[in-house]
Amino acid sequence: MIRIAVLGCGRIGAMHAANIAAHPRAVLAGVFDIHSPAADDVAKKNSAEVFSSIEAVLASKTVDAILIATATDTHADILEMAVASGKPVLCEKPIDLSLQRVNLCATKIAKSDVPIQLGFVRRFDPGHAAVRKAIVNGDIGDLHQVVITSRDPGLAPEAYLRVSGGILRDMTIHDLDMARFILGEEVKKVFATGSRLVDPALMEKLDDHDTVTVVLTTSSGKQAIITNSRRATYGYDQRVEALGTKGMAISENRRPHEMTLHAADFTDRAEPLLNFFIERYREAFDAEISEFVDAIESGRAPSVGFEDGRMALVLAEAALKSIAEARVVAVTEVV
Amino acid sequence: MIRIAVLGCGRIGAMHAANIAAHPRAVLAGVFDIHSPAADDVAKKNSAEVFSSIEAVLASKTVDAILIATATDTHADILEMAVASGKPVLCEKPIDLSLQRVNLCATKIAKSDVPIQLGFVRRFDPGHAAVRKAIVNGDIGDLHQVVITSRDPGLAPEAYLRVSGGILRDMTIHDLDMARFILGEEVKKVFATGSRLVDPALMEKLDDHDTVTVVLTTSSGKQAIITNSRRATYGYDQRVEALGTKGMAISENRRPHEMTLHAADFTDRAEPLLNFFIERYREAFDAEISEFVDAIESGRAPSVGFEDGRMALVLAEAALKSIAEARVVAVTEVV
Amino acid sequence: MIRIAVLGCGRIGAMHAANIAAHPRAVLAGVFDIHSPAADDVAKKNSAEVFSSIEAVLASKTVDAILIATATDTHADILEMAVASGKPVLCEKPIDLSLQRVNLCATKIAKSDVPIQLGFVRRFDPGHAAVRKAIVNGDIGDLHQVVITSRDPGLAPEAYLRVSGGILRDMTIHDLDMARFILGEEVKKVFATGSRLVDPALMEKLDDHDTVTVVLTTSSGKQAIITNSRRATYGYDQRVEALGTKGMAISENRRPHEMTLHAADFTDRAEPLLNFFIERYREAFDAEISEFVDAIESGRAPSVGFEDGRMALVLAEAALKSIAEARVVAVTEVV
Amino acid sequence: MIRIAVLGCGRIGAMHAANIAAHPRAVLAGVFDIHSPAADDVAKKNSAEVFSSIEAVLASKTVDAILIATATDTHADILEMAVASGKPVLCEKPIDLSLQRVNLCATKIAKSDVPIQLGFVRRFDPGHAAVRKAIVNGDIGDLHQVVITSRDPGLAPEAYLRVSGGILRDMTIHDLDMARFILGEEVKKVFATGSRLVDPALMEKLDDHDTVTVVLTTSSGKQAIITNSRRATYGYDQRVEALGTKGMAISENRRPHEMTLHAADFTDRAEPLLNFFIERYREAFDAEISEFVDAIESGRAPSVGFEDGRMALVLAEAALKSIAEARVVAVTEVV
Repeated sequence: MIRIAVLGCGRIGAMHAANIAAHPRAVLAGVFDIHSPAADDVAKKNSAEVFSSIEAVLASKTVDAILIATATDTHADILEMAVASGKPVLCEKPIDLSLQRVNLCATKIAKSDVPIQLGFVRRFDPGHAAVRKAIVNGDIGDLHQVVITSRDPGLAPEAYLRVSGGILRDMTIHDLDMARFILGEEVKKVFATGSRLVDPALMEKLDDHDTVTVVLTTSSGKQAIITNSRRATYGYDQRVEALGTKGMAISENRRPHEMTLHAADFTDRAEPLLNFFIERYREAFDAEISEFVDAIESGRAPSVGFEDGRMALVLAEAALKSIAEARVVAVTEVV
Repeated sequence: MIRIAVLGCGRIGAMHAANIAAHPRAVLAGVFDIHSPAADDVAKKNSAEVFSSIEAVLASKTVDAILIATATDTHADILEMAVASGKPVLCEKPIDLSLQRVNLCATKIAKSDVPIQLGFVRRFDPGHAAVRKAIVNGDIGDLHQVVITSRDPGLAPEAYLRVSGGILRDMTIHDLDMARFILGEEVKKVFATGSRLVDPALMEKLDDHDTVTVVLTTSSGKQAIITNSRRATYGYDQRVEALGTKGMAISENRRPHEMTLHAADFTDRAEPLLNFFIERYREAFDAEISEFVDAIESGRAPSVGFEDGRMALVLAEAALKSIAEARVVAVTEVV
Repeated sequence: MIRIAVLGCGRIGAMHAANIAAHPRAVLAGVFDIHSPAADDVAKKNSAEVFSSIEAVLASKTVDAILIATATDTHADILEMAVASGKPVLCEKPIDLSLQRVNLCATKIAKSDVPIQLGFVRRFDPGHAAVRKAIVNGDIGDLHQVVITSRDPGLAPEAYLRVSGGILRDMTIHDLDMARFILGEEVKKVFATGSRLVDPALMEKLDDHDTVTVVLTTSSGKQAIITNSRRATYGYDQRVEALGTKGMAISENRRPHEMTLHAADFTDRAEPLLNFFIERYREAFDAEISEFVDAIESGRAPSVGFEDGRMALVLAEAALKSIAEARVVAVTEVV
Repeated sequence: MIRIAVLGCGRIGAMHAANIAAHPRAVLAGVFDIHSPAADDVAKKNSAEVFSSIEAVLASKTVDAILIATATDTHADILEMAVASGKPVLCEKPIDLSLQRVNLCATKIAKSDVPIQLGFVRRFDPGHAAVRKAIVNGDIGDLHQVVITSRDPGLAPEAYLRVSGGILRDMTIHDLDMARFILGEEVKKVFATGSRLVDPALMEKLDDHDTVTVVLTTSSGKQAIITNSRRATYGYDQRVEALGTKGMAISENRRPHEMTLHAADFTDRAEPLLNFFIERYREAFDAEISEFVDAIESGRAPSVGFEDGRMALVLAEAALKSIAEARVVAVTEVV
């Protein structure tokens, strides 16, 4: 049993704490939040200890590893502290909104071999992972095109969007990592285009976009296409498609159940999609904890690490530059 | 090119005439209907000759074969005349509503080797035929259960229902033939139950049922289940499922196109099913003509013949007896 | 928080214990099994107390309610003891293999108002429940036909089958309850037919069947059809379909994920179905515990109770009689 | 009845001739091909006249309209001749491989009101057309993103590819027109990227690509994404998806029938997709002729005309420029 402490008790931290508490090979070793009522609440629900500071967590002998789910601008600092303390880290994405800061962090932790896992949870989704597995198994032959559809069920509140780093660093970053995961080779060039269609006034105000398409190409000519929207009324649209020389694999959307209605005007009418990430990626969040536990127990590096977090941000920066300059951007321009 | 004359220019005769006219290996040699304007209309649309009598058709040297689509109570007489004339016959189902009359007809034509094909068009449906092919190929192993769902989009007019012979002889008969086709062995026992749910008053008046379930078993214990309804608001529901030791094959419904809608309240909303048999079994009606042409050209018996027509009626009679006496009926009781 | 003790620590008892331990509104108050290592194992995994006897459980002040997952032939005795003790009971199906014993039990508990819930877990499946809800909402109008497909992924071991009470009392009983749940009115007549196709020699030896079809009818003429097989190679096949005057609702099978493969020989190739009931009805088992907790907390009767357990067994008996006598059996003959 | 002559009796001309011959409101008035055996063959199969020259066709009083299915480099010349003769034209795409030639043709026919229809057959596909109709009906609200998947089942022969004008002018041009059709407004900017993955050596030799992604944007920020491949082993992959403020519409692939197989290793295994365009767009080719007949009969312009053919070529040119210069190209640069 690996004893994991959760730092940050907001929506996603609370979910992680409950998942760890219910996990057959993990124990919730305690929680911390700068807003102590949030920590108290999560601790109570999961019968766990409340720590008074991050330092206390890192110093504790009853904590084997930590999960960082605090505000984004604290990730890099805490990650560095955790690495210094020798405790394995599962860090929510992004490492930081600033690539400079991430690069600095990379330098600081370069000599450590403390296991670091990045919270790209979608890699653990059974359907998406099955697409990657089909490729590795040779089921679709050599990969040619990847198409990732990723649309949120609705626009997040302005307060959240304001500090999110923008759609590319906040939302697309998951898809950029998915593209790297499925492609299995590094992206060389990035093209992106952004529109303001869901809420033009707000997007204008925030200098952000709500509708984005990104095209990635690798040295060998493989293509990955990402289509993003901040608003899909029919639910959280999450699909991954891979075309190869021998065939195609598609990870389709999931629904809460498989009941369909048929009437005079229609057939096959199903429920809206699972909404939102906590429901859609429930199995994936569990599998993410399992991977973290496995890596710690076997002393190996987690399958998705710091460099994956850094490269996704690099691609987000390249995409932002592509939108700003309306041209294709080489990844080497932003690394 | 086989020159086929169509007898009977009602809805289904007119359809057959057009199909034959458009068929690459058949020619519409002419049409006949006791109501001559109907014949004139079909002849004009397909640039075909109008014959003045059935005798004239059977005597004609420009007619190679005939298709019987006249009123049901004339089928057996015309079939006997056609056989006597030596012209191959494609006869719409049922041969007759009376099993006695069918048995008499069987005796009369027993010594002839004129090709006779029965109009069990569903055997030629690409999806249903693929289920049978999967069984023959061994894809699902030994067959255990067959489930046939067959529901009309709506109740036919009372005038039609009155002369239809009742739901078992008119509608279920297609499914009874489908069961024999898929089972690949003869039915031994029949159970049926009928209800009056779609239009109780009318069904009471006609002493008929609108909702029927039939269970057929063979000597080896294979089971076939038929569920019928005279009214499926969502379209013409036509499914065939076969379970075997190695797997299952299902022939699902078809829609006019594959566009689906997704909105705040639903996903995957598709069009109602193809409605009615002329649309749903379009490819099958073409393939039926092809089978007739093939059989004539190669001098072999059509794959679905007189005895198939007779056995389907035998099963319908057994099912009627089962409903009337609320018990399992052995096929030997009615043959 | 309702404190629930689990009696019986076999496969299904162990699953219930874990579900209760993880349930947000329930606590695993302890476990008992006549084979104490089984109890120890489940207790250890869930950090719960081990009780030394059923009497100790029923006397305990830290136990609010009990879940009976012991051997079938002990259900009725324990249920009576629990009712006498005043503790609410969630009892796995069947109450007993003998209808006489069940009727006796009914008499004994008749005057009690202790909440009793029967373990017909499928009523809580999100998809199947949505079919019922669609009917209640009027989405499909008046109900006409129900079609329940229920096939196990493979034959259970002979040792299990020998004490199971036969396919009707062991497996079909779930579908008989589902038919009652969906129909919303009592069954009047039963027809059933059984075959020995999956393992004829074993079925002969056990005087049992492995392939069964049951047709149920109500006073108003509604029809429910159940098709059972002990072996569906493609997984645990669990479908419920309801046809009404306005439309149709279908609860389709679930797969572990939504990845499909497309290649030169095929398209849409998906994974085998979820296998077996612990995986397929995972959400349902959780919802079943929620219903039990709700009923206890609000002092109401659970939505599925003792009489539902008794009536399902009555229908199983009627179906057995129908197979034995090859005729339609009125429910009144066996009540 | 509109009497239509077909010029060019290759694969697609032969198909059009047969479709016209079978069309209820059209007559095949005759055929012409510079290779007279091809014309003889098509004429014989459809009992139609063979013309000795294009001039003879255009002068004929028994020809109401013409369909141009000759070699691409003759389209513009014949189209100009037909317009001069006053006979309505249905012209296969592309008008010419040279935008200059097309612009010249536009000038020459500018003052004519002879009906000209371009052979963008996919607009008449029931599924794709239903997506457009859903948008026009307001079913998905304001349009934001269009995703067009268009993959051929296999690489055409080198001889064909050599004169095809390249993948953008030959294959993508259909998708560029589909994008315009679905978008309902003009494209402003084009980004494209091309790879050589299916047959790198041949593509190198032909200076062509086999794997292409195109991103189109309009003034209002709508995005359309096209993914092309010359080789989808699983069949002719033709999908159109539209996302709007209220929902999404998807036109999915079609299969030859709806039979699926389920076995120990898989479920839902369906047939490969319909292959190739003659099968997949069968209904669309019929509807295309109907539109032509309707337009002529009612004296209105066909719904897809010369300017649509020109604009699709403009977008193809912009995409080629985008690939060549690795940048976003404004449509105004190439018009």
